[in-house]
Amino acid sequence: MTKSNLGNFFEDFTPGQQIAHATPRTLSEADSALNIALTGARHALFSGDSFAQDCGLAGAPIDPLLVFHTVFGKTVPDISLNAVANLGYAEGRFVAPVYPGDTLSAVSEVIGLKANSNGKTGVVTVRTTGFNQDDEPVLSYVRWVMVNKRDAAALTTDAPPITPKNVVSANELMLPPGLDFSNYNWTLAGSPHAFEDYELGERIDHVDGMTVEEAEHQIATRLYQNTAKVHFDVLAQKESRFGKRLIYGGVTISLARALSFNGLANAQLMLGINGGRHVNPLFAGDTLYAWSEVLAKEDLGEVGALRLRLVALKNQNAAGFPLKNQAGEYEANVVLDFDYWAAIPKR
Amino acid sequence: MTKSNLGNFFEDFTPGQQIAHATPRTLSEADSALNIALTGARHALFSGDSFAQDCGLAGAPIDPLLVFHTVFGKTVPDISLNAVANLGYAEGRFVAPVYPGDTLSAVSEVIGLKANSNGKTGVVTVRTTGFNQDDEPVLSYVRWVMVNKRDAAALTTDAPPITPKNVVSANELMLPPGLDFSNYNWTLAGSPHAFEDYELGERIDHVDGMTVEEAEHQIATRLYQNTAKVHFDVLAQKESRFGKRLIYGGVTISLARALSFNGLANAQLMLGINGGRHVNPLFAGDTLYAWSEVLAKEDLGEVGALRLRLVALKNQNAAGFPLKNQAGEYEANVVLDFDYWAAIPKR
Amino acid sequence: MTKSNLGNFFEDFTPGQQIAHATPRTLSEADSALNIALTGARHALFSGDSFAQDCGLAGAPIDPLLVFHTVFGKTVPDISLNAVANLGYAEGRFVAPVYPGDTLSAVSEVIGLKANSNGKTGVVTVRTTGFNQDDEPVLSYVRWVMVNKRDAAALTTDAPPITPKNVVSANELMLPPGLDFSNYNWTLAGSPHAFEDYELGERIDHVDGMTVEEAEHQIATRLYQNTAKVHFDVLAQKESRFGKRLIYGGVTISLARALSFNGLANAQLMLGINGGRHVNPLFAGDTLYAWSEVLAKEDLGEVGALRLRLVALKNQNAAGFPLKNQAGEYEANVVLDFDYWAAIPKR
Repeated sequence: MTKSNLGNFFEDFTPGQQIAHATPRTLSEADSALNIALTGARHALFSGDSFAQDCGLAGAPIDPLLVFHTVFGKTVPDISLNAVANLGYAEGRFVAPVYPGDTLSAVSEVIGLKANSNGKTGVVTVRTTGFNQDDEPVLSYVRWVMVNKRDAAALTTDAPPITPKNVVSANELMLPPGLDFSNYNWTLAGSPHAFEDYELGERIDHVDGMTVEEAEHQIATRLYQNTAKVHFDVLAQKESRFGKRLIYGGVTISLARALSFNGLANAQLMLGINGGRHVNPLFAGDTLYAWSEVLAKEDLGEVGALRLRLVALKNQNAAGFPLKNQAGEYEANVVLDFDYWAAIPKR
Repeated sequence: MTKSNLGNFFEDFTPGQQIAHATPRTLSEADSALNIALTGARHALFSGDSFAQDCGLAGAPIDPLLVFHTVFGKTVPDISLNAVANLGYAEGRFVAPVYPGDTLSAVSEVIGLKANSNGKTGVVTVRTTGFNQDDEPVLSYVRWVMVNKRDAAALTTDAPPITPKNVVSANELMLPPGLDFSNYNWTLAGSPHAFEDYELGERIDHVDGMTVEEAEHQIATRLYQNTAKVHFDVLAQKESRFGKRLIYGGVTISLARALSFNGLANAQLMLGINGGRHVNPLFAGDTLYAWSEVLAKEDLGEVGALRLRLVALKNQNAAGFPLKNQAGEYEANVVLDFDYWAAIPKR
Repeated sequence: MTKSNLGNFFEDFTPGQQIAHATPRTLSEADSALNIALTGARHALFSGDSFAQDCGLAGAPIDPLLVFHTVFGKTVPDISLNAVANLGYAEGRFVAPVYPGDTLSAVSEVIGLKANSNGKTGVVTVRTTGFNQDDEPVLSYVRWVMVNKRDAAALTTDAPPITPKNVVSANELMLPPGLDFSNYNWTLAGSPHAFEDYELGERIDHVDGMTVEEAEHQIATRLYQNTAKVHFDVLAQKESRFGKRLIYGGVTISLARALSFNGLANAQLMLGINGGRHVNPLFAGDTLYAWSEVLAKEDLGEVGALRLRLVALKNQNAAGFPLKNQAGEYEANVVLDFDYWAAIPKR
């Protein structure tokens, strides 16, 4: 039998199965620098140690999205090597900050299995938890993905997924211990706009655009130790539907989030991921734009939380806030519809 | 009103205005490694901790050009987002070394404003100072840039710029505290040529060439958190004069300086920037070459200082030291004419 | 006389010559992160500090191949700037681990010189040793390379090379002090396959493919401070045999080794390099695949050692284990035939 991992197929998953994923990864200042270099991230809390210290932290933490991609990357060899489509995620919660020097690992539980009627694929739902070197959870999220069957005739057991919540409740959002915005430096943060200034339904054009190169998304995706071959193997992709490499959706999220600095500079800290869908593929050579909408506001006491929809577009700027056509379908240039909570200082 | 930053236009600047720029940035060993990976830098003082320690320092400092690009990058969203042309800089002085772990921020003062007669643009001159986390200045320089007006009819006040000095005086050059070349290891540095060996007017062909890729300059420019859209947004650039992305001039300077190792390996430490002009654009796919000329020599006591002209060329090697044609205009392949001071050990 | 280094030509080398190479380089966590980002490396010992600590080490060491490339890079300006072909290496031994913060330098001894009958070139054989900041050797290897003569008429002295051993003896393999696999976590390592599970002659298809971009190999090769112009200067390369940039062979080795994780996840630690040949060139745009063969097994007591042949292919997957044609020549898609020792835990 081969010692190579060909990935799990739909019939390999069982309800309630616990999968401990390989390759613990220590994140360092290097990952923060690479995150900046690869995405253009500018939120001050993750860029400057002294800024983070003025906010009550020991130093600049690792960007939560980098934590997400690192944890997600670990799950790929076990969960989605034979995935046909990444359908979505939900209930993402960043429950403890990650600092340079922390080592991350990940465990997933299979919480849903549903064979498709075509007999060829099924939907696997997992709840993944990322842990640090002290076995403290730092992140958990639910993800569902369509996975190929190895053998169409294989018998499978359905296990209806626990329906994920549409929104992470505000009382489940966790702030990094010590976080204190009372000395917040609005100038160094890059914007005067506080929690109070954002209005429900407000939409923000993030203006700037970013063209993505093959080398950039490959370097980023390898940094996350994400091995999904659709991002790396042009030869194999030539026979795929698109005929070329796809950019990992996490790269799209991080690029869009970095673009959102321009208008949301004070929405420093991603606290939760309510949901996310990659509605069209992004390819190298495409130029990404983004806009945001304020979906909800919650006063968490010391800080405010904004629930934000982050929409990313390819090859079309965000003026006019494109999203769906009259039939309710996503427009062809929309690549990402992402829904998250962010901490933002109050005035 | 939009919360997005559309940048300042010429009429937004006022004489004497102080602008504190956003996004403090902690530089780490990662930035030094990325500087090497992105530019090919080889000057030993910034590459090896033990070499730097033998030169009296606590460890390898951050390359001064990386400090420059980081500080410069912070100014872009406030100063040059609507720039038409980067006209030049002068009076650059590296006044304190930056070590891994230091956090940089930047402040600019508007020291000159001059509307152009076309009514559409004006020249803004600023003096920018970079600070570390202890509010100690690490770098200052003067820059002038041509900026669009938002409204051609807007009234503006001229404030004639203080004429920058052509050359930073030798007595203004600052060496890192503790720097001591008495145990200098010429072999590990890569060249036997000392301060005494360089002659006024001597020209050095740096021989090697470096082809630049889109991903490389974008990664570097994002590392500096420089957001000028001309470097990143191919869609917007299609309507520009060149029809494609421009490489940030700082990338050109760092690449040329890295090439200059071959002939100037002991010119370890940039101390001052007398002036610099980007005389032609550099694009991805171009191959960069460089040559240097010794413009002046100053004995600073413990060390020598060379005033060097660093000329970078695209798609033409440096044999013959191309610079200007008979009419005194820069030749088309010359992209950079840069004038700086470097510390070099004496024998 | 020019101060630029044009490299040594064949007649510049003398038997027994000792060459101390320039540019000491401190490796840090950043180099480990970049190694992951540029190659896709996943062996847990170099990825997670806590995993390395559970294996008795102070933290994750620097990947031995990164040590090799760094040491090798230092030799290029002295040994192979005028090389026509990199013929091979042997007797590679990693004799002490390298940790973040260590500073590497390199010394080579000329142990063989043989002029070719064409009068234009000769073969230079060197033994190179890499040292850390305490002057302890960390790596030694023998390399032979065909180098141009500056002057076909130049007289040269032959010094027949000491014939390198075909294989590093198992008793010469050095394990990092403290290494202890008794608490080895097979799950976090990513595979259940121990020393005992691999059979002599067993071949493993590593399945995955990786397409290489110009920016990626250039960034990696600069990270190693390898200045060979064939990797960087598209203009000079236009007049070469291939008409374009060649990818540094060390990048190929590291990519193939990273691909080999899939099937050899527990072959954590490269201990020795028995030999290596780059049998066909790799170019940007090519997709790399790899397979391995178990050539020998040695029980080192606490751990096992596998002698592995690592074969890398371009633009053809590894199914069928392509290597040589019936005439005994390497097939056109084979780019690397590499022979090394790796430490692997016993059950």
